[in-house]
Amino acid sequence: MGRLLNQIKEPNDIKRISPKLYPVLAEEIRDFLLNNVSQTGGHLASNLGAVEITMALHICLRFPEDKVVYDVGHQSYVHKILTGRKDEFSTLRQKDGLCGFPKRSESECDVFGTGHSSTSISAALGLAVARDLEQKDNTVVAVIGDGALSGGMAYEALNNLSILRKEKKNMIIILNDNKMSISENVGGMSRYLNDLRSRKSYSEFKENVESALNNIPGVGKSVARTLKKSKDSIKQLFIPGMLFENMGITYYGLVNGHDIYELIHAINRAKQHEGPVLIHAITRKGMGYKNAEKNPEKFHGIGPFDRQSGELLAKKTKKTYTDVFADSLVALAKNNKKIVAITAAMPSGTGLKSFKKYYPKRFFDVGIAEEHAVTFAAGLAAQGMHPVFAVYSSFLQRGYDQILHDVCIQKLPVFFCIDRSGLVGADGETHQGIFDISYLSHIPNMVLMAPKNGREMPGMMKFALEYNGPIAMKYPRGSVYEGLSEYNAPVELGKSEVIHEGQDVVILSVGSIMEECEKAVQHLQEKGYNPGLVNVRFIRPMDEDLLRELAAKYPLIVTVEENELIGGYGQMVSAFLHKNKYHNDLLSLGISDYFVRHATVAQQREQAGIDADSIVKSIIDRMN
Amino acid sequence: MGRLLNQIKEPNDIKRISPKLYPVLAEEIRDFLLNNVSQTGGHLASNLGAVEITMALHICLRFPEDKVVYDVGHQSYVHKILTGRKDEFSTLRQKDGLCGFPKRSESECDVFGTGHSSTSISAALGLAVARDLEQKDNTVVAVIGDGALSGGMAYEALNNLSILRKEKKNMIIILNDNKMSISENVGGMSRYLNDLRSRKSYSEFKENVESALNNIPGVGKSVARTLKKSKDSIKQLFIPGMLFENMGITYYGLVNGHDIYELIHAINRAKQHEGPVLIHAITRKGMGYKNAEKNPEKFHGIGPFDRQSGELLAKKTKKTYTDVFADSLVALAKNNKKIVAITAAMPSGTGLKSFKKYYPKRFFDVGIAEEHAVTFAAGLAAQGMHPVFAVYSSFLQRGYDQILHDVCIQKLPVFFCIDRSGLVGADGETHQGIFDISYLSHIPNMVLMAPKNGREMPGMMKFALEYNGPIAMKYPRGSVYEGLSEYNAPVELGKSEVIHEGQDVVILSVGSIMEECEKAVQHLQEKGYNPGLVNVRFIRPMDEDLLRELAAKYPLIVTVEENELIGGYGQMVSAFLHKNKYHNDLLSLGISDYFVRHATVAQQREQAGIDADSIVKSIIDRMN
Repeated sequence: MGRLLNQIKEPNDIKRISPKLYPVLAEEIRDFLLNNVSQTGGHLASNLGAVEITMALHICLRFPEDKVVYDVGHQSYVHKILTGRKDEFSTLRQKDGLCGFPKRSESECDVFGTGHSSTSISAALGLAVARDLEQKDNTVVAVIGDGALSGGMAYEALNNLSILRKEKKNMIIILNDNKMSISENVGGMSRYLNDLRSRKSYSEFKENVESALNNIPGVGKSVARTLKKSKDSIKQLFIPGMLFENMGITYYGLVNGHDIYELIHAINRAKQHEGPVLIHAITRKGMGYKNAEKNPEKFHGIGPFDRQSGELLAKKTKKTYTDVFADSLVALAKNNKKIVAITAAMPSGTGLKSFKKYYPKRFFDVGIAEEHAVTFAAGLAAQGMHPVFAVYSSFLQRGYDQILHDVCIQKLPVFFCIDRSGLVGADGETHQGIFDISYLSHIPNMVLMAPKNGREMPGMMKFALEYNGPIAMKYPRGSVYEGLSEYNAPVELGKSEVIHEGQDVVILSVGSIMEECEKAVQHLQEKGYNPGLVNVRFIRPMDEDLLRELAAKYPLIVTVEENELIGGYGQMVSAFLHKNKYHNDLLSLGISDYFVRHATVAQQREQAGIDADSIVKSIIDRMN
Repeated sequence: MGRLLNQIKEPNDIKRISPKLYPVLAEEIRDFLLNNVSQTGGHLASNLGAVEITMALHICLRFPEDKVVYDVGHQSYVHKILTGRKDEFSTLRQKDGLCGFPKRSESECDVFGTGHSSTSISAALGLAVARDLEQKDNTVVAVIGDGALSGGMAYEALNNLSILRKEKKNMIIILNDNKMSISENVGGMSRYLNDLRSRKSYSEFKENVESALNNIPGVGKSVARTLKKSKDSIKQLFIPGMLFENMGITYYGLVNGHDIYELIHAINRAKQHEGPVLIHAITRKGMGYKNAEKNPEKFHGIGPFDRQSGELLAKKTKKTYTDVFADSLVALAKNNKKIVAITAAMPSGTGLKSFKKYYPKRFFDVGIAEEHAVTFAAGLAAQGMHPVFAVYSSFLQRGYDQILHDVCIQKLPVFFCIDRSGLVGADGETHQGIFDISYLSHIPNMVLMAPKNGREMPGMMKFALEYNGPIAMKYPRGSVYEGLSEYNAPVELGKSEVIHEGQDVVILSVGSIMEECEKAVQHLQEKGYNPGLVNVRFIRPMDEDLLRELAAKYPLIVTVEENELIGGYGQMVSAFLHKNKYHNDLLSLGISDYFVRHATVAQQREQAGIDADSIVKSIIDRMN
């Protein structure tokens, strides 16, 4: 570890570093980040880009008295380093280790946890208003990327900042503008920021015009008079960032986001301002590490890698569910011109990059805007298109109202391809896809499917794209389960797939947890039991005919799902049994009413009791 | 009915009216609206304000080929009148009658159903992109109010309009700017629009400056040269609506939204534009009816009234749940300075107007921005405040992700007061509060309560404001149930209230459906049964101790809730019984997997089988 960084053991220790050494400290921090993240994996590029911004905040503010909310939060590593957590970095994103996002439970300096995009301004406004009501005078800052600014709730919060302006109360937004979210940014706001970035000569320009107007007697004055007729027009002439100014937010820009002294100056100046201020800082994602600068998307979130070459240590060998989705969609779209694909700023993560390559006119990246994405899809569907919205399970939570209100009430054929459904591992609580069954299955008209393995996906997708109504397919992060590939019955609405017949007990497996259920069946067989196994396929509509058969045959029915139990598939089966007066014993396994912290997926399954061994144990316990 | 209006029997019939008679037709339409809505009740003020805009659209466009999406949709009456539905207006918002919102199932001219705010631009963009992919050339229009522009998804959609600009494809947004949503508008965008409204002399101003610059040789040119250094600055100088222009949307304004000829001119001009256009039309809510102009909030959504006096025909006599909430909060806030109240643009509807009067500094209207509202509340809570977010059940759907991600993961003490929970009557499908148990009860850390009557609310609210975590109370639209007021056990976390002991069957009643359950108990008693009755109070956490007692005592357990059955309380009880190996018979009553159309609440309860008679019948059926 660097000499200077070694001196930083507690919050505010950075203030003891001599200002002339700041660039050296920045270098040491980058070295530390690279050393650690190359070993543990994690978010790299955004943290390298935020080194100076975070340092400047820690130099200008006092922690924990002052409050900083990091939007999305994966760029908070430097904040963690500077607030006494650097010795825990070897445990990053591991079970019981340091979380990859800000966490209130981890430090008093993490005032507000984040994970999903575009929440920081809302949260910071809450902190600022609470401060003012209690007549305190601490500083409140939101650090938000230009990508997160495309999210609607960021705009809702900007809109609401007018209450601070009215009271002449301060709040600082640092716009960390690196022209990217995970991928390249899109949309009108992005275009606008780009426009601002190109205006280096603004202050010069302003001076030129002012002197031109003032120095020329008579004529100049007449123009000036004309100009003064509208005070706001003059503002529009001179002030960049007018979009923010129009909404009542003072704009400071541009600031070089890698010039620590310029940043310190801007923050100190902004602290004095009566009203909300936005500092527009230009940064480079991956700054200081050539491999990441060249390929920031690869180094956004990455596994352990070789620092020298930038190559991943564990080579990807197996296909992921995402890969299968991507390939199948490209194939299906060939002969179906109605298929259009939508992503909310994640063309790579969702696999839609290949669709974009083949069908650029039918591909739409709407920015970090899940709400709009869903209703935009509904609009397309209302005109006869068949839109596919590929999205992570936890991010689709943002579109809940739109799914219900715009898609399902109107029974429009939108196909939701829900990636990262189930347990996701190291990203932890904010990114788990363990609620989608609960938030989708109660919506009338929705069809919800889950494939047991990769092999099953193309058939489901073909079915979905022929189905004339709202339909969703959920599949997990990571490599496909390759077992049971010989089972591949045609996909039929609301029909499950029986894998094994049995006698004592039947396991209803939802989606890819089949991997554990199939193992459990083998173990049970080894122990002399005779379990049946069913691939649920359709969570909704349920296969009621099959359920009746199973209820008549098996004394014990077991449901297994990688979802919260409340509102999950097991509950639907439970309700079905009661409704139809079946008195079978029912055991429902899944996540039981808690948020799942970061760990490996295997550890998370074990904790939830849905790994093969736990399933076996629970079943045997229940049978005795 | 007016002579001209009488000639309009089908879509496009308006085109046969002589242009010079347009103002007469407008008058006839207003008269028709007043005659009908004063008898049926409905949304009045916004429709009176949108008469000329809608007429102009029907004059300039062809239906159903061209597409108009009405944001929120309660201002679509004139559209319905002009598309052949005027003879059905006597059935407005009644069972099997005309819906109060656009509905695809009602007319080919209702291309996209609405109800919740801020969806129109997203939907219209979908319609426009579909048009372009299919190489059609119809016109697509979104009509959106200035209030709806405070919703984040409207901004997400504006941001995404850049794709049309890139392809030089047309889409028209008509900003129907009446300075109001239901109440007065708030926030930075509202401030900005206000600013635009005040710039009448823009084109004049532009001419003045241009001529000043051009006519003065030498000096003028030098200034002009300086100005030309930045093309965009000149644009900023001359063009109002720069906020929209900045995002790549061409701005046409201001237009008098009650001058039919000006509107026609603007729309015809906008149709020719290559790229998205926003027409900024200034209107007056309630236009043409003095009572509504004076008090647009009262006449926003109204029951039958006397046209002459503007007085409601049915006088309000009983207290509503909203009233009790409002009074209790004011009382509780007196001695608890930590209590702050938040509304998303509905100070009257939620009853927070009185809180605002007493505690203006602790009251926050954030605009139509439920997402921001929830996270703003979380920020306040993170700093020790105790925020109360009063919101309608169906609108809180917008905040689902924020409730989960920002409030519940962090276990922050935000109190959600969920009004219009359960069946709401005439507003129909988009406004039913029948999903809140399903979308809230699966979120870890959430506590969810429902009072049986008005009397129970203050105690629950006191409890909630002493509870240190996320907590919600749901209560319905309309007058309080006044029965069972003698039952008022202290509110205790997770404890239900036993109303009657019984023997054959026990009814678990969730919230205000108690009114029907209590009647059902009486009927059952009259028929010789001996039913028990429990006020559930806490949907979550469940009263497991009591459930064990009940399971041991009653052969049949019945749950009744005004909520979708999937993900509802009944399912939680079902899962509890299975988990704990109870073999009781369980009957769960609620809404069974459909969207509930407009009708009276009584009719809707009957349809769902949760009115007293249906409950009795279901129970007796089940017992035999």
